[in-house]
Amino acid sequence: MKPDLSRRAAAEFLGTLFLVAAVVGSGIMAERLSGGNVALALLANTIATGAALVALILAFGPIAGAHFNPVVSLADAMEGGLTWPEAGMYAIVQIAGGIVGTVLAHAMFRLPIISLSHHVRSGPSQMLSEFVAAFGLLCVIWGCARSCASTVPFAVGAYITAAYWFTASTSFANPAVTIARSLSNTFAGIRPLDVPGFILAQVAGGAAATLLFRWLVPDLPAAAKDVVLARAVDETAARDFAS
Amino acid sequence: MKPDLSRRAAAEFLGTLFLVAAVVGSGIMAERLSGGNVALALLANTIATGAALVALILAFGPIAGAHFNPVVSLADAMEGGLTWPEAGMYAIVQIAGGIVGTVLAHAMFRLPIISLSHHVRSGPSQMLSEFVAAFGLLCVIWGCARSCASTVPFAVGAYITAAYWFTASTSFANPAVTIARSLSNTFAGIRPLDVPGFILAQVAGGAAATLLFRWLVPDLPAAAKDVVLARAVDETAARDFAS
Amino acid sequence: MKPDLSRRAAAEFLGTLFLVAAVVGSGIMAERLSGGNVALALLANTIATGAALVALILAFGPIAGAHFNPVVSLADAMEGGLTWPEAGMYAIVQIAGGIVGTVLAHAMFRLPIISLSHHVRSGPSQMLSEFVAAFGLLCVIWGCARSCASTVPFAVGAYITAAYWFTASTSFANPAVTIARSLSNTFAGIRPLDVPGFILAQVAGGAAATLLFRWLVPDLPAAAKDVVLARAVDETAARDFAS
Amino acid sequence: MKPDLSRRAAAEFLGTLFLVAAVVGSGIMAERLSGGNVALALLANTIATGAALVALILAFGPIAGAHFNPVVSLADAMEGGLTWPEAGMYAIVQIAGGIVGTVLAHAMFRLPIISLSHHVRSGPSQMLSEFVAAFGLLCVIWGCARSCASTVPFAVGAYITAAYWFTASTSFANPAVTIARSLSNTFAGIRPLDVPGFILAQVAGGAAATLLFRWLVPDLPAAAKDVVLARAVDETAARDFAS
Repeated sequence: MKPDLSRRAAAEFLGTLFLVAAVVGSGIMAERLSGGNVALALLANTIATGAALVALILAFGPIAGAHFNPVVSLADAMEGGLTWPEAGMYAIVQIAGGIVGTVLAHAMFRLPIISLSHHVRSGPSQMLSEFVAAFGLLCVIWGCARSCASTVPFAVGAYITAAYWFTASTSFANPAVTIARSLSNTFAGIRPLDVPGFILAQVAGGAAATLLFRWLVPDLPAAAKDVVLARAVDETAARDFAS
Repeated sequence: MKPDLSRRAAAEFLGTLFLVAAVVGSGIMAERLSGGNVALALLANTIATGAALVALILAFGPIAGAHFNPVVSLADAMEGGLTWPEAGMYAIVQIAGGIVGTVLAHAMFRLPIISLSHHVRSGPSQMLSEFVAAFGLLCVIWGCARSCASTVPFAVGAYITAAYWFTASTSFANPAVTIARSLSNTFAGIRPLDVPGFILAQVAGGAAATLLFRWLVPDLPAAAKDVVLARAVDETAARDFAS
Repeated sequence: MKPDLSRRAAAEFLGTLFLVAAVVGSGIMAERLSGGNVALALLANTIATGAALVALILAFGPIAGAHFNPVVSLADAMEGGLTWPEAGMYAIVQIAGGIVGTVLAHAMFRLPIISLSHHVRSGPSQMLSEFVAAFGLLCVIWGCARSCASTVPFAVGAYITAAYWFTASTSFANPAVTIARSLSNTFAGIRPLDVPGFILAQVAGGAAATLLFRWLVPDLPAAAKDVVLARAVDETAARDFAS
Repeated sequence: MKPDLSRRAAAEFLGTLFLVAAVVGSGIMAERLSGGNVALALLANTIATGAALVALILAFGPIAGAHFNPVVSLADAMEGGLTWPEAGMYAIVQIAGGIVGTVLAHAMFRLPIISLSHHVRSGPSQMLSEFVAAFGLLCVIWGCARSCASTVPFAVGAYITAAYWFTASTSFANPAVTIARSLSNTFAGIRPLDVPGFILAQVAGGAAATLLFRWLVPDLPAAAKDVVLARAVDETAARDFAS
């Protein structure tokens, strides 16, 4: 019933591609149109990103879980939902998809297809922000996964919409997206030098939340043997067709 | 159980009419009130369009599938959900409904009922944007149709909300809407000369996504014999009444 | 199983009260804070109104249908969901609730509790806008009522969010709200002289949509014998408890 | 089946922590970026808060009800959903979580970890606003709890989104959040001197709505023996796994 690995890889590639295209592309459009009002630009960027997440997780969740994020795949592997080689493969196609997403956004907006970002995002408060952002993201995913999994697309979209504003780093919370954004010297960019710190903080935050939920919801691992979201959506589908 | 063709045509006509009235009308209102801030105008236009899509797909989906878009009807015909003559009829009433929607928006805002747009939207980056916009739209529809079809209204509304910002063309993604918008020299307009290129890119994008999903979700065509959304909502209804 | 008339009247009173407080109150707040940018003020007013509708219909729908609107109660009576005396009673408490809502908003913002509006909203394009606004609202309600009734709160909230922008009148679409807004010389106000025209257009639009749906969805009246939304939510509840 | 008290306390602590971090953090970000446009800052603050509520209630609701608010726990205890000692414990961890949330937001934005607010929010209209805000919040919760409990996360998120704008106090509606916001001399702050008045009004509003619903929905207490939201989500889960 679970799709084969090549289809799942394609779904993760395509979903991450569109997610990054949405983040980078809407940042470019927002910066161009907002006449220097950064709050307005970030608001447009936020709404586009949150909405894209809802649509993409709904669309690609049934195929491969709609992780689009190596930290989510890592956490899923920690709980036995993915094997470690699968998680590694997921991370690779997510990173590749993200980079192609940046290239695609640049092409649509007639920019050089790659441009290293000069946007400095460093220091302890940025690192703390990314730890918090990824910690919260995994809390939301694990919190919904046990008993209201069909709401994950809305919960994740809403969480990132909020986290863009309540973290000082605008909540990248995703190593694949972070790498892809380092290749765009636009509104959504991040200096390549700052990428490793972001990824470290994201992995730490995601792992911490996963360990916390082992205690908080003891029966979670047993229920999480399959891909996080795919399981949820399949159950919903099963209910649909059973009636 | 499926409504007869005249009712389905009326539903597609009316839904596309309201969709275009929402796109064009909110563009007029937004441009009038925003004092030259294009980002703010587009944000209002985006929110109105995304919300209109949610409401209209929920309302008209049970009758005729709530395509409102010849590319969606074409894709549905490719997968056997509509016969080709039905798809042609859908396209005709969608185009007619869209044109009446433009006229209605102009009448509400006391503008000449038709005015050819001077808004230039041409070049490879615009064509690429429309290809991407329609490709993504069909990915979202096919992705949801198999196993979470009752979420299509929210997924499509969210997708277009995002795509207004992440494509350089503001994501028309719909030949009927494109034609209707060429008749409005307002915020949402497009020069009639640029319409054929947009439609070509939209059809190519929608067809490419449909072919991709034949491989990505092999059992999709079997599950898609009926109108895309009508099927989804009827199943939900069946579940409602069964309990 | 249906609550008695006094409880239903209280629910309609309270819901319309909160709806008008949300419309008028958010208009006051938005105008005060937006520094003369009308698009920004209307955007805040729109988001507050749409969100209030979602919350209030979800909360009060199970008790009395969450009409909050004499045109909706009239349409429900046309289809046999309410008796005509019930519809009259609904209209009276809706109007009373709306007026108290205006008073409450004024009290919260330290304004005179009643102030007749000087905001001119007249002429054929305004009348057409209100006809369209109410016509579309009833299309959305009847369209959802047959087969996806649990989505009515989201559909109505989304529809009004869009209609604030795509109609030239900002879509009052509700006689009780129109009367209440005539008593507030603030952002959301309407000159008392213009109220009768608005109400006439709203009633005509709602009745036209209801007649259209008699043809469009022939089995709708049979399915609509009970209060529009209460029925929907009770079915959902039945499903919840049955499993 | 209900998690033990330490886990529920942890969930309430963590959820309130994130809620306050979202309120305070997004206020800081919004004020920094909005160039003095208070409407734009409040709009960003509103969208972040409403979205955070949706995500957090979905995630933590299954564990402990996702009250995040002593007034909600008090109301739940009034109806027998919590024992009074449990409600007291909930209030304590909510207040503690809120304070840590403020500290966390300050740390992320490189501000002193605590700073007493100078933001004056006093007078009868502010007190009335908080009474109305909490009254409406409990109406929404009790209204949904009987028959559409799985929609509570969306209803509460939507309600607070609206109430930020339609009450003169921007709808704190939560004693734990009020205390936490008194420790932040930023956009979202409140002068410590004004806290007791706010809490008094909030408790009165929540209790009044609870008493009203005893009459309005007589079978509510019988249905509310368990934690408000946890019950709802568990039922949804039961339905999921039954099929």
